[in-house]
This record gives sequence, C-alpha cells and structure tokens, in this order.
Amino acid sequence: MNSIYKKECVPCKTGADKMTLKEIESQMQSLSGWDITNQGDISQLQKIFKFKNFKQALEFTNKIGKIAESEDHHPTIILEWGKVMVTWWTHTVQGLHMNDFAMAEKTDNML
Amino acid sequence: MNSIYKKECVPCKTGADKMTLKEIESQMQSLSGWDITNQGDISQLQKIFKFKNFKQALEFTNKIGKIAESEDHHPTIILEWGKVMVTWWTHTVQGLHMNDFAMAEKTDNML
Repeated sequence: MNSIYKKECVPCKTGADKMTLKEIESQMQSLSGWDITNQGDISQLQKIFKFKNFKQALEFTNKIGKIAESEDHHPTIILEWGKVMVTWWTHTVQGLHMNDFAMAEKTDNML
Repeated sequence: MNSIYKKECVPCKTGADKMTLKEIESQMQSLSGWDITNQGDISQLQKIFKFKNFKQALEFTNKIGKIAESEDHHPTIILEWGKVMVTWWTHTVQGLHMNDFAMAEKTDNML
C-alpha cells in the first residue's frame, strides 16, 4: 500500500481538474472504510468513525479540525454521541482532488 | 419573553411524553432563528449559525460540546467552514422534550 500520508495539500485553483473515476478507484485501494458518495455531480469521500461516548467523538473532531486548519482544507464533520462522520471533497474542483485522499489518510492517522 | 435558560435538563425516561404540537408552538415563541424539522415522526429543533471561518465554527462546536456534556444531553452538530448546524431532540421520547428548548436557549447563549 502506497502511503499518501506525507503528501501535503496543494492549493486548488478554480479550473483545476477533478479526479476521474478511474483515478478515484485507483486511490480507493489505499484507503480502508471510506466510501464515495455523490451530492449531485459532486463526488465526496466519506467515513463514519465510532466512539465510546460524546467526549471521544468531540476530541476526534478537534484533531481533524487541527489538520484541516494546518492544511487549509476543511471537511464537513457530523458530530453525534459516539459517532463522527467526516466528508472530504474539494469545492474549487466540484469533486475530488488528490488532496482529499491525502486528508482521508491523515484523518485515519488521527485515531 | 420567558427565559428557559436557567432550567436544567431533567433525565428523560422511555415512556415519557414528547411535547405536543401546541406545546412546541408555544415554546417556539421564546426562541429566535430555530426551526422545527421532522425526521420521519421525530420532530427536531434546528438552527444554523454562521461564522467568519472554520476556527470560530470549531470553537462554537466545543462550547456546545461543553454544555452537552454538563447536561448529559447531546445534539447532532454539523461543522463546516464558517457554519455550524445544531439539532436538538430527545431520543427517549422520539421527539421534543422541554429539555431541548432549554438546550436551544443555552446554545444561543454560547455565542
């Protein structure tokens, strides 16, 4: 498995290409437990993380917040008692960029 | 406007009555910016809070987390860049309890 963990986010400009389905399928091989969901035409990378209580779920949310701020790339986080759902995608390309896969792996490494 | 802010959460037991539509409508008069949404048969109390950036949205999420833990009553929080959507309801009554209105007012007071 090739790690993309050490890759840093590169700024995305409007007009940059979003990943093709083939590229997405290839990168999905490197991740575990993540799904591709679609919001209209926008593909997103999503995973649910389970915890023993709200406190742990909030702590995880803060860890993700820290990497999001450090990379200036921000997900949607749904926080509930014992559960955090994280969704990554890239607004400027209206879909998935290699950055999102890097962030997904960083998210897993926050556990 | 009668404040319910000082009311503390009381434990909800399965079988406790959820609020009637009339009771909900009455309590909604005390709140500003909150909407009633329905997840199937379950009424929920929901509000979107806007912020200047992700950092402020995360800070607000943590403030809500603090009151949620102190009252042992937990919402669903959707955290995004510059936005937090908070949803309160009571699992044990499968709908809204007076606690949720107290928590909604406490949430407003966290701003």
